[in-house]
Amino acid sequence: MIYMDNAASSPLRPEVLETMLPYMRSVGNPSSIHRDGRSARRGVEGARRHVAALLNADPSEILFTSGGTEANNTALRGVSGGRLVTTSIEHESVLEPCRAQGARPVTYLEPDSTGTIPPETLDESLSEPAALVSIMTANNEVGTIQDVRALAGVCRRHGAVFHTDMVQAAGKIPVDVKSWGVDMASVSAHKIGGPMGVGALYVRSGTEMEPLVLGGGQESGMRSGTENVAGIVGFGEACRLARAEMSRNIPYVSSLRDQLVSRLLEIPHSGLNGHPTSRLPGNAHLAFLGVNGEDLIIKLDENGIAASTGSACSVHTQKESHVLRAMNLPAETISSSLRLTLGPQNTSEEVGKVAEAMPHIVSELRAVSPLRERYGF
Amino acid sequence: MIYMDNAASSPLRPEVLETMLPYMRSVGNPSSIHRDGRSARRGVEGARRHVAALLNADPSEILFTSGGTEANNTALRGVSGGRLVTTSIEHESVLEPCRAQGARPVTYLEPDSTGTIPPETLDESLSEPAALVSIMTANNEVGTIQDVRALAGVCRRHGAVFHTDMVQAAGKIPVDVKSWGVDMASVSAHKIGGPMGVGALYVRSGTEMEPLVLGGGQESGMRSGTENVAGIVGFGEACRLARAEMSRNIPYVSSLRDQLVSRLLEIPHSGLNGHPTSRLPGNAHLAFLGVNGEDLIIKLDENGIAASTGSACSVHTQKESHVLRAMNLPAETISSSLRLTLGPQNTSEEVGKVAEAMPHIVSELRAVSPLRERYGF
Repeated sequence: MIYMDNAASSPLRPEVLETMLPYMRSVGNPSSIHRDGRSARRGVEGARRHVAALLNADPSEILFTSGGTEANNTALRGVSGGRLVTTSIEHESVLEPCRAQGARPVTYLEPDSTGTIPPETLDESLSEPAALVSIMTANNEVGTIQDVRALAGVCRRHGAVFHTDMVQAAGKIPVDVKSWGVDMASVSAHKIGGPMGVGALYVRSGTEMEPLVLGGGQESGMRSGTENVAGIVGFGEACRLARAEMSRNIPYVSSLRDQLVSRLLEIPHSGLNGHPTSRLPGNAHLAFLGVNGEDLIIKLDENGIAASTGSACSVHTQKESHVLRAMNLPAETISSSLRLTLGPQNTSEEVGKVAEAMPHIVSELRAVSPLRERYGF
Repeated sequence: MIYMDNAASSPLRPEVLETMLPYMRSVGNPSSIHRDGRSARRGVEGARRHVAALLNADPSEILFTSGGTEANNTALRGVSGGRLVTTSIEHESVLEPCRAQGARPVTYLEPDSTGTIPPETLDESLSEPAALVSIMTANNEVGTIQDVRALAGVCRRHGAVFHTDMVQAAGKIPVDVKSWGVDMASVSAHKIGGPMGVGALYVRSGTEMEPLVLGGGQESGMRSGTENVAGIVGFGEACRLARAEMSRNIPYVSSLRDQLVSRLLEIPHSGLNGHPTSRLPGNAHLAFLGVNGEDLIIKLDENGIAASTGSACSVHTQKESHVLRAMNLPAETISSSLRLTLGPQNTSEEVGKVAEAMPHIVSELRAVSPLRERYGF
């Protein structure tokens, strides 16, 4: 199997599994005061330092959660008060909490056709007061990277709390919550070679917010529940590795991606979606006119290639991509889009195989396409 | 190390770890439609059947969560409307959401001195209408088991939704949500040899409730976020094993516990807290007058024995046990209490060692106790 669906979930790195196993084989609730408990506690606190280092935060500013979705929910529902400003291209775990705000006003900023939210658009919107702004660092579908430093600066000037969903960005591109002036940021382990079921919310010291999950008072009272010790330890190691290897991974993954994109663009009536340059290293999001994206996934799967049409999370809603729609792409582009997301474990050989298989698959599907005549495939 | 803190967290069973490893070594978001995703999905659905079987529920009635705390929060905050009825001996993950209900009225039922909530007490309280009742199946500190069938029956007669925190009970004693008439029940993996960071909420089909964590719509829209696949698979296996071995484990663990309790009650000025018979098989909760419980834990730890004073989760609040207080135990009993919780992995030899060490430790601590003169230790 050639796995090119790393934005949905990335393989757990063997080195990460190795750090988790001793914690899985030992016992101890980190809240227990005996030595088994204290050893679990040390594991959690060590991981907290690694997560903090990746974001350039203080360890005390990191709250472990069960994943990116819970982190986003905690941020979005934790800061109450005035208006909420977000964008129409956020992940469902931001959009759904926004839709559930009841009477609270919510503004959805629109991106340009590359998936970029211009800081001026935010500035304009904040001429009316807002309590909280949430704009993702990099889009999970098309990979477009926002100018988070500029967006955070706008929020600071207007006195709004700024949250950013860094689930797809952290560990893949340099992020810096401190120098960017971010108040809250969500991250996830399983997008960067860590285990599923673990994430974190960075909350800048002094940010006022309420916890989502209440109980025994773990995570400084901000996220109750017995800590997922082994998962957290694995997340820490994944962050440590991502940070250590980033300067090597960015050019490597980008060059694989560029190789893949340029080969795939040789297919007639194809195009790249998203920003041409300001995009995640591993993201290749393309449209092949006349082909249905889902059919493409199934054919690729039959050929041993794992890909997706967009967000794995939106498979439950079965709707067309709200991201591509917000970018104002034509309906035909939206329905014929494919997302291939690469990681450091992918190889040039794999890219070659995919590039070789694709033209045949696309031709096969176009041969039975209702748009065949119109485009003259 | 002799581990007798199984109510705080139990060791991950090697058989459970074995079922998790293939899922940790493979990749795939269960929402992805390619074969890696479908294989992850099969793991999740298989586990759902095992969890359902343990509770006698339908698999479609099981929602996976990040643990018992999130399950309790989801239940308590998911059913809105009228008055909420609970007890003063619940876990913090029930009590804290109750305290956060704002203007909504909450009634706290009081237990008797054994930690039992008489069904008549509930019946009386429900003479005034209530939307939701939450009463734990077995107490995490003293191990007292409630008559859940009777309590659920009372709720049914009065038309209130009934939730029960089964975190300490499921997998240790027979539970049956269907025949008992329970509407919602919370369970946790790491209390029964499964991994930390996984739990589930049983929601009887037809029960109206709102999700706590919103997003991509996983778990039938009731709990969003990428599933913790390996953790869920491990939880399923832990449930399967607990169910298969229950008829053997209950007499085995109970007899170890009885052996331990009878040996420890030979220590002068000691007493058993909780119900004499209607208690969890592994729970031994005793007071040793004149000794501080925390000092006891530390001394036991020095002697290679892991124990606790009560709930690991309440270590953050550093308060005396709200459970023992609600049971109206004297202040001296409360401060001198020790919880030893046994599991199927404990042995008669370990019980012997603890029983041998305890009199010396208690004597040592009593020698410097301020109550020495009063009790004539």
